[in-house]
Amino acid sequence: MMNIAVAQSGGPTCAINASLVGVFKEALKESTVDAIFGSINGIEGMIDNHLVDMKSMILTNADMELLRQTPSTVLGSCRYKLPDWHEDEDVYIKIANTMKQRNIGAFFYIGGNDSMDTVNKLSEYFANIELDVKVIGIPKTIDNDLCITDHTPGFGSAAKYVATTMHEITRDSIVYSIPSVTIVEIMGRHAGWLTASSAVLHAMGETAPHLIYVPERAFSLDSFLSDVRQELSKHKAVIVAVSEGIEVPEGVQSGLVDNFGHKYLSGIGKYLEDIVRSEIGCKVRSIELNVMQRCSSHLGSKTDIDEAEEIGAAGVRCALKGNTGKIVVFKRISDAPYTVKIETANASDIANKEKFLPDEYINSAGNNIRDFALDYFMPLIQGDLNLVTEHGIPKHFAIHESVLK
Amino acid sequence: MMNIAVAQSGGPTCAINASLVGVFKEALKESTVDAIFGSINGIEGMIDNHLVDMKSMILTNADMELLRQTPSTVLGSCRYKLPDWHEDEDVYIKIANTMKQRNIGAFFYIGGNDSMDTVNKLSEYFANIELDVKVIGIPKTIDNDLCITDHTPGFGSAAKYVATTMHEITRDSIVYSIPSVTIVEIMGRHAGWLTASSAVLHAMGETAPHLIYVPERAFSLDSFLSDVRQELSKHKAVIVAVSEGIEVPEGVQSGLVDNFGHKYLSGIGKYLEDIVRSEIGCKVRSIELNVMQRCSSHLGSKTDIDEAEEIGAAGVRCALKGNTGKIVVFKRISDAPYTVKIETANASDIANKEKFLPDEYINSAGNNIRDFALDYFMPLIQGDLNLVTEHGIPKHFAIHESVLK
Repeated sequence: MMNIAVAQSGGPTCAINASLVGVFKEALKESTVDAIFGSINGIEGMIDNHLVDMKSMILTNADMELLRQTPSTVLGSCRYKLPDWHEDEDVYIKIANTMKQRNIGAFFYIGGNDSMDTVNKLSEYFANIELDVKVIGIPKTIDNDLCITDHTPGFGSAAKYVATTMHEITRDSIVYSIPSVTIVEIMGRHAGWLTASSAVLHAMGETAPHLIYVPERAFSLDSFLSDVRQELSKHKAVIVAVSEGIEVPEGVQSGLVDNFGHKYLSGIGKYLEDIVRSEIGCKVRSIELNVMQRCSSHLGSKTDIDEAEEIGAAGVRCALKGNTGKIVVFKRISDAPYTVKIETANASDIANKEKFLPDEYINSAGNNIRDFALDYFMPLIQGDLNLVTEHGIPKHFAIHESVLK
Repeated sequence: MMNIAVAQSGGPTCAINASLVGVFKEALKESTVDAIFGSINGIEGMIDNHLVDMKSMILTNADMELLRQTPSTVLGSCRYKLPDWHEDEDVYIKIANTMKQRNIGAFFYIGGNDSMDTVNKLSEYFANIELDVKVIGIPKTIDNDLCITDHTPGFGSAAKYVATTMHEITRDSIVYSIPSVTIVEIMGRHAGWLTASSAVLHAMGETAPHLIYVPERAFSLDSFLSDVRQELSKHKAVIVAVSEGIEVPEGVQSGLVDNFGHKYLSGIGKYLEDIVRSEIGCKVRSIELNVMQRCSSHLGSKTDIDEAEEIGAAGVRCALKGNTGKIVVFKRISDAPYTVKIETANASDIANKEKFLPDEYINSAGNNIRDFALDYFMPLIQGDLNLVTEHGIPKHFAIHESVLK
């Protein structure tokens, strides 16, 4: 008998708790697994030996269903970058001690690119010190920018939020008799997947978004203004989707960086709003979808949440087969009928890499997404969750805030 | 036989189209009503004689259901302030000509405070020129700031959006191990109803929002910083709800004014974010709920949408009984079981007035909402719409954009 541990890392999504449920449920089925520990605040909990017994936290099937529908990371998160273990072994020794003390034979890390770096480093380190702990990565990120996997859990729900909200913003924007421009800023540091997904509105017969700008193409203010003027000649209310990560003149991005060296981006929408106001002079508004695009589980995609649970379970099976340093990934078999299978890849092939929008998804003017690309996005946003509500609003699974301190 | 006309005005909500459906359905039942005209862009359509035949626009019961679920104003909107007819009769003559030419015997105006001013002026003018056109106001505004009526259609859905989203933002905010402050800016120029409604989270067992600031109380930066520091000593992640309309030092509000002399407000959240960063120095973020709080019909409150339809129908009955210059209003009979009846009030008693949060709803420190006030808010957010979806996202009823031009 061995114990296992699971942790959640990086920016919240609607699907990370569903993957946690997937790990938990699958581990419950395994006769070789005894305790299931949840590590508080990602890898920080493993360093500090701050673990919770998940069997005493999740008691019923109703708890599991509620947790599946709860956004963000019930075990907390972190943005902790492990050092190179050849240079600085201290935290590795602490993590290894937690593994030994708690008799942990497998560790599951649910996260994005940075967490896959942790999976890679930990599996290498454990091999080096000959500690038999399997380390498996379970992908998540609304950015959808992990290599090898067809898509990442969390992306489908975020895309469903973006499409639904852009649709409603389109209704809101069109009401007045004067020309207007509405600029919607969407998350995505370097990859435009989420911004591009707003194009699914075109399948609803909407002309909006009339313009879509992603970081994969160079951004020119002159072209932007010319594009907006042209769309204003055709539509009274022009809707623009813009990724937070497009490159604009220096000084707009705040320049603050996080522990991984990522710049905190903000204000691109506001910046373009000011440019349109001064250069074109029409009514203009910018809207930041902010954290809502990553935590609006009331708009969770059933496809996404179901898949997130399945890939969590697949991670457990992968470890119990003796694998380590692996990431579970989706391989798409077909768009229609939508079919995916779960495979494994080496963490070293995924860590610290980014996957960008295929160039052919973007039109030649670099200001919209081609229709055929919708075949990729559309299956990921299908289906609704059967939401548990209380007092008229969706209920959440929550552990007491004191546990997370 | 006479014809009728209906128009929608002011800022979009999730319930304005439901009131339009209420007017339309009730008028269909009346043997004395022939054509049902929709005026494009509010009163502007009556001035320009730009009307659509609603019977050729709404063909089926499915159309009506879809329109009920569609946010914003399908007939367009306006922010047009009628002049005093004693001083400037020109537009009144144009409106009267449209009424006569189209044989319109009753005009229904769905809108907020400003639209009720239009109802009042038009009914006075028509009486003065002895033109027999009944003018009835049907209230709507997410601000909930109309006098006499218990609440306004559109408010319940906006409050449901605010509560659901604040709940999800709370989950999102609590994940990291470092102290943080999240400031959520909510609409409301002078009245704090929508901001106060975020307190319904307390009924879910949430401590968030930990601080709630409404325009009804004077705002002090010193007290705000002291409040935030105190909450940070109790909670790792402090969530603040703040109305866009709180008074902060001059220069923060942009100072632009609309046709009614209302200031365009923005950036209060961002302003407070900057203050917290410089004075307290912890992780801090501000989130503007922006137009999503008024157009997210995917989170529509069934109670709100049903009531919006009912009050539209009641407006038709009110006119056909021979009333004019009246507004249909809700009178609450009891909180539990929640019971309201529809009455009428004089437009002159509602126009250009605002209803504020009762002082006793606000705690003595002026930084939160008392629990007993939840009895008022809670019934208004109950029930979900049975959403019609297409391609995985809610479908909307839309007339071609060329009609609105």
